[in-house]
Amino acid sequence: MRKIGIIMNGVTGRMGTNQHLGRSIAAIRKQGGLELRDKTVVMPEPVLVGRNALKLERLAKEWGIERWSTYLAACLADKENIIYFDAQSTLLRAESVKEAIKAGKHVYCEKPLAGTLEESLELARAAERAGVKNGVVQDKLFLPGILKLKQVIASGFLGRVLSVRGEFGYWVFEGPMPPAQRPSWNYRKEEGGGIILDMFPHWQYVLENLFGRVTAVSCIARTTIPDRVDEAGKTYTCTADDAAYATFELEGGAIAHINSSWATRVNRSELLELHVDGTAGSAVAGLRECKVQSRVTTPKAVWNPDTPNPIHFLDAWQTVPTTVAEENAFKIQWEMFLRHVLENAPFPHGFLEAAKGVQLAEAGRASWSERRWVEVPELSLR
Amino acid sequence: MRKIGIIMNGVTGRMGTNQHLGRSIAAIRKQGGLELRDKTVVMPEPVLVGRNALKLERLAKEWGIERWSTYLAACLADKENIIYFDAQSTLLRAESVKEAIKAGKHVYCEKPLAGTLEESLELARAAERAGVKNGVVQDKLFLPGILKLKQVIASGFLGRVLSVRGEFGYWVFEGPMPPAQRPSWNYRKEEGGGIILDMFPHWQYVLENLFGRVTAVSCIARTTIPDRVDEAGKTYTCTADDAAYATFELEGGAIAHINSSWATRVNRSELLELHVDGTAGSAVAGLRECKVQSRVTTPKAVWNPDTPNPIHFLDAWQTVPTTVAEENAFKIQWEMFLRHVLENAPFPHGFLEAAKGVQLAEAGRASWSERRWVEVPELSLR
Amino acid sequence: MRKIGIIMNGVTGRMGTNQHLGRSIAAIRKQGGLELRDKTVVMPEPVLVGRNALKLERLAKEWGIERWSTYLAACLADKENIIYFDAQSTLLRAESVKEAIKAGKHVYCEKPLAGTLEESLELARAAERAGVKNGVVQDKLFLPGILKLKQVIASGFLGRVLSVRGEFGYWVFEGPMPPAQRPSWNYRKEEGGGIILDMFPHWQYVLENLFGRVTAVSCIARTTIPDRVDEAGKTYTCTADDAAYATFELEGGAIAHINSSWATRVNRSELLELHVDGTAGSAVAGLRECKVQSRVTTPKAVWNPDTPNPIHFLDAWQTVPTTVAEENAFKIQWEMFLRHVLENAPFPHGFLEAAKGVQLAEAGRASWSERRWVEVPELSLR
Amino acid sequence: MRKIGIIMNGVTGRMGTNQHLGRSIAAIRKQGGLELRDKTVVMPEPVLVGRNALKLERLAKEWGIERWSTYLAACLADKENIIYFDAQSTLLRAESVKEAIKAGKHVYCEKPLAGTLEESLELARAAERAGVKNGVVQDKLFLPGILKLKQVIASGFLGRVLSVRGEFGYWVFEGPMPPAQRPSWNYRKEEGGGIILDMFPHWQYVLENLFGRVTAVSCIARTTIPDRVDEAGKTYTCTADDAAYATFELEGGAIAHINSSWATRVNRSELLELHVDGTAGSAVAGLRECKVQSRVTTPKAVWNPDTPNPIHFLDAWQTVPTTVAEENAFKIQWEMFLRHVLENAPFPHGFLEAAKGVQLAEAGRASWSERRWVEVPELSLR
Repeated sequence: MRKIGIIMNGVTGRMGTNQHLGRSIAAIRKQGGLELRDKTVVMPEPVLVGRNALKLERLAKEWGIERWSTYLAACLADKENIIYFDAQSTLLRAESVKEAIKAGKHVYCEKPLAGTLEESLELARAAERAGVKNGVVQDKLFLPGILKLKQVIASGFLGRVLSVRGEFGYWVFEGPMPPAQRPSWNYRKEEGGGIILDMFPHWQYVLENLFGRVTAVSCIARTTIPDRVDEAGKTYTCTADDAAYATFELEGGAIAHINSSWATRVNRSELLELHVDGTAGSAVAGLRECKVQSRVTTPKAVWNPDTPNPIHFLDAWQTVPTTVAEENAFKIQWEMFLRHVLENAPFPHGFLEAAKGVQLAEAGRASWSERRWVEVPELSLR
Repeated sequence: MRKIGIIMNGVTGRMGTNQHLGRSIAAIRKQGGLELRDKTVVMPEPVLVGRNALKLERLAKEWGIERWSTYLAACLADKENIIYFDAQSTLLRAESVKEAIKAGKHVYCEKPLAGTLEESLELARAAERAGVKNGVVQDKLFLPGILKLKQVIASGFLGRVLSVRGEFGYWVFEGPMPPAQRPSWNYRKEEGGGIILDMFPHWQYVLENLFGRVTAVSCIARTTIPDRVDEAGKTYTCTADDAAYATFELEGGAIAHINSSWATRVNRSELLELHVDGTAGSAVAGLRECKVQSRVTTPKAVWNPDTPNPIHFLDAWQTVPTTVAEENAFKIQWEMFLRHVLENAPFPHGFLEAAKGVQLAEAGRASWSERRWVEVPELSLR
Repeated sequence: MRKIGIIMNGVTGRMGTNQHLGRSIAAIRKQGGLELRDKTVVMPEPVLVGRNALKLERLAKEWGIERWSTYLAACLADKENIIYFDAQSTLLRAESVKEAIKAGKHVYCEKPLAGTLEESLELARAAERAGVKNGVVQDKLFLPGILKLKQVIASGFLGRVLSVRGEFGYWVFEGPMPPAQRPSWNYRKEEGGGIILDMFPHWQYVLENLFGRVTAVSCIARTTIPDRVDEAGKTYTCTADDAAYATFELEGGAIAHINSSWATRVNRSELLELHVDGTAGSAVAGLRECKVQSRVTTPKAVWNPDTPNPIHFLDAWQTVPTTVAEENAFKIQWEMFLRHVLENAPFPHGFLEAAKGVQLAEAGRASWSERRWVEVPELSLR
Repeated sequence: MRKIGIIMNGVTGRMGTNQHLGRSIAAIRKQGGLELRDKTVVMPEPVLVGRNALKLERLAKEWGIERWSTYLAACLADKENIIYFDAQSTLLRAESVKEAIKAGKHVYCEKPLAGTLEESLELARAAERAGVKNGVVQDKLFLPGILKLKQVIASGFLGRVLSVRGEFGYWVFEGPMPPAQRPSWNYRKEEGGGIILDMFPHWQYVLENLFGRVTAVSCIARTTIPDRVDEAGKTYTCTADDAAYATFELEGGAIAHINSSWATRVNRSELLELHVDGTAGSAVAGLRECKVQSRVTTPKAVWNPDTPNPIHFLDAWQTVPTTVAEENAFKIQWEMFLRHVLENAPFPHGFLEAAKGVQLAEAGRASWSERRWVEVPELSLR
């Protein structure tokens, strides 16, 4: 049984607490650690790092963690800690990550890696020069619904993929009643908010991993809701985009169009749905489910508004059954990163990939302001 | 009882036969004519015009029409015929319409009015100069589902409209088995095919009438299916766009994004759905139905892929009940045009409006080829 | 409009009356004849031939046919009659067909073509020598369900076909109450009865056309019900097989197992079901419907008799929608044969194919009596 | 309360753990033991035997068992252990069973008893000579659905049984995604795999107990899926049969045809279904349910593909209600064997019966390779 120290910075936030601490690291500890290929069992020993000692103490107690600290430098100096994880707000991330790299830690981060492509590439190059392992959260790839879609694509069921339609979003309450279900900084550009920066990194890796590289983007966005009420009950002016309409060209010529919005009411089964049409079949995937329709069961649709449609189109889809135990997407990726660090297992989600996500967000913003398609060149560290 | 002669040119095609002859003119005749405000009853006396005498004879017999002819000039010379209607294929329309105007007929046409904006404006100006009444089919405005949406908007239910999402399309079979359910010319650019030219005229008048003028468009399209099998069982190369992804800016700043495709499998209740989000509520309208969700019944959506979503989002919408008898959309507009001609009732669907539809199609094509937003200036006859 | 004389011999039987006269020839007459490629319209003018003048007269009257006769030779001598059709009982067929060939008629027959392979080949060679067109009924190929299955196979949905399971049959009442729903000669070997001779010709062409040539057969049969009551209310001893269990090897190695029985109670949706398993998907086709299950929607079945199965397996199949108007299978083939005779259209259902069906029946009977696999060599006319 | 020691060898496998340990022995312990006719209560005291100490310890702990050992000889030497149970893989079984017999233990085994008939008979003779009680698992006889079928047969409902159709199987995933739901050795002949050896022992005792002795078999099999992915994610070549089509002649002349396959998609209510037709009625039995159709409720089926079948055949069957508490099939047989050992109750599932199962598997394999019917002589120990 081998213990490994992990610095977890910024886990007092919602995602940090729930997904990274609770459902990932604490869950791995509870299951008795992680067994490597050589049968060694590895036990993560996190140290929770943040600015609010009270919150840290409470969190550590709740999850049975022994160590917490408000002093990052000391944690980085401790050789037992071999991994640095960062879930701080985007604008704070780059500096801490740089220090961790300097201290020789392997680094794992929430997305987006940084606020700009330049900064992201800088971090990627620094990590490469330092020879430390690095990774970024790409959790959507491990959602049960997206995994099923991947399996459908791999099986050849779709034939040649023609197009992808994505709908993401829901109504984020403006407050005060009901109160908002997302933090207020999301709606302030100056604090790193905005739906383009938040979601385009996701669309980048989902599209590239499932369908092919994004080669160009056309995007327009809006600040739909001008004022909202914050956590303290105060009305503030929204400065960040809360709805983005983006069309992506994919390598090979297929089109992906994705609407992302925090100001839409959900007319779907799941908060995110990707509808993929192929020559031999189509699929609609959400967070957890995936349904399909093959060429041979495609109903013959005929435009006739004079009579109620005789075909119930939604019944012509069939759900892909669940065939494996479904794990938390964040935990899956945490275990992959641990194996990457400890036994050199492949981990195709490094900082260069993270930079691609930020690159797409920047290209999306450029397209919006310049009112034209923006090409997305291939990225490399040299 | 006053009889009025109507020249119906090109009604041997599917839309001409079913919608204009069968469900409109023959239906008006069957109901005993159209009563004007002054209680005069008007009975349409059509003369069917076309190139195939056999087909015309059969059609006339089937619908109890006395007159048919293969000689348009003679029909135009007949003073009893006061209205000229044209449902020929787009590329033939302009010339016949010009002759009708020259002959002093009031003119009513299928859409698109012509293959180009220039030609459309020319017709509009010619009609104005000649002082004849003119109109174009804008049937989608009279679909039961769109009428209900209009009523929802008018009631103030939606508050300020923020965005419109449209999905139109279905899978058109490539043949030979199952055979295609649309004519092959739709997929040949050189014959006036293409989904942009077919559908953008519709999107123009629907958006303008419901939400506001379209001020700019960004569009990309594809010829998704490269080969299809035609009516004679022969494989042909598709040259026209069969899928278009378009984002429209509306006067006032709202965004409308509409996907149009003949190569998608339907994951909706109806072949066309418009999803409108507003500050006070949202609506989803199709051909026949319209459902709504108000601010106060909007469920609190939270992103959590770890458990099956506890909310069944599709159940959170409520159907707008049908409260009036639903008429065929084409017949409604035919009766409006007859009243326009006969008692000068308003008819806001003239040739200038028709030109706007063609203008938007041209702007969409330009945006596609120039890879940028294209502004859509206001159109006038001078 | 061209009239062509067709001698219809043996149409007083159930199949002859209902399928060949009523649903095929009379239906073609009712629809106004058959239009050839050169737009000539051909009108079949049948002469009904049989032994019972009373029955013939009544039948002719019922179906609006002018000509009937009990004297075959005279009908064969009439040059207006260019086609001879035979639906007599199997044992009478060969002789009449030979005469028709001698008289230079094109010949179309019910199956089986003859009682033995030798006789079938003899007829095939005679027809070839005489240069007359010839055909045999292979109606199952034109059943809506089998046509859909063919379309599913053609689309590649199944991947590599692994196996075929067939279940055909139902309970034929023994009489007297309820009375039998099939004629008594079916159960007397000496009158050409027996389920092997009746059904194996069907399995031969269905298997060969859908999956590949049958190369070997293993078969066992039984006379399950020893006594039945005939049309006259008299008990008779059954001498023919009424249930056959046959396994077929197909070119390429796939296995088809088909149970055929007139002594089984139906536990299926349709009287005949073919269940085809392939690497990428499976299909179950009946007379009218076809349902499919793809690899990606295959449920994970686990053997656990301790709890009611959590999976409702029958719900995991999806029906192939009907996309074309469905015609009577016999009429489709009649029209094909008429086009074959009149405009030389292809007709892959000639006497050599008919002989293959009888060959498989003979091989099945040999396998039964010799208790071993019997190889089925490829057949040719030379 | 009398304690009896039971050596359980090979219960770390899936069937051993779930069915024999968990649902049988642990369940008997949990219910407070087994009451004999003389009111003595017997408590099984198992000792878990295997090769992996870690697994055994964990298993013992999980099920509250005190004793486990990796040293079989010592367990056999312990006089407290009066029963030896074996659920090892087939190729290891014979040797351990021989030792147990030598040590004077009563012996109970999973099926198949051994890899060959010769070895099976040897074990049966050895047990007889040693005077130890012996038994083999024949669990399918105690499935709720098969028990109901037995009751239907016993009641005379079916009249004379004419034929039996069996369908067993489901799709075993090839991996890697979804992963296989059966162990990889099942698909390797050299490790005792193959569906004939796995399933024919079951068909032997089910057919003999319900309908009569199997007197001959004709069988053909296939290795349908050539490559699969094993538990470690490695692709391997399949060498064992995964689909078998077998026809059995039963004493008295009835035919049973059973398809067994791990490469078929389930078009039934249950993974195994036996369809039995009799003169007075029919029955279809699965693992848990059994439904029947009597002569008087048999619908009159008529072949007519021209209209949708007016009869919904599946509705013409009626479910046999559950009238007794349903027990786990393995537990039922364990209790029978314990009573057999402890109070000499009858137990008609001894090693000679086990040998018959292996005999049928061997006959099936011989039939496959020799392409002929193979007779199955009656077996005896002398």
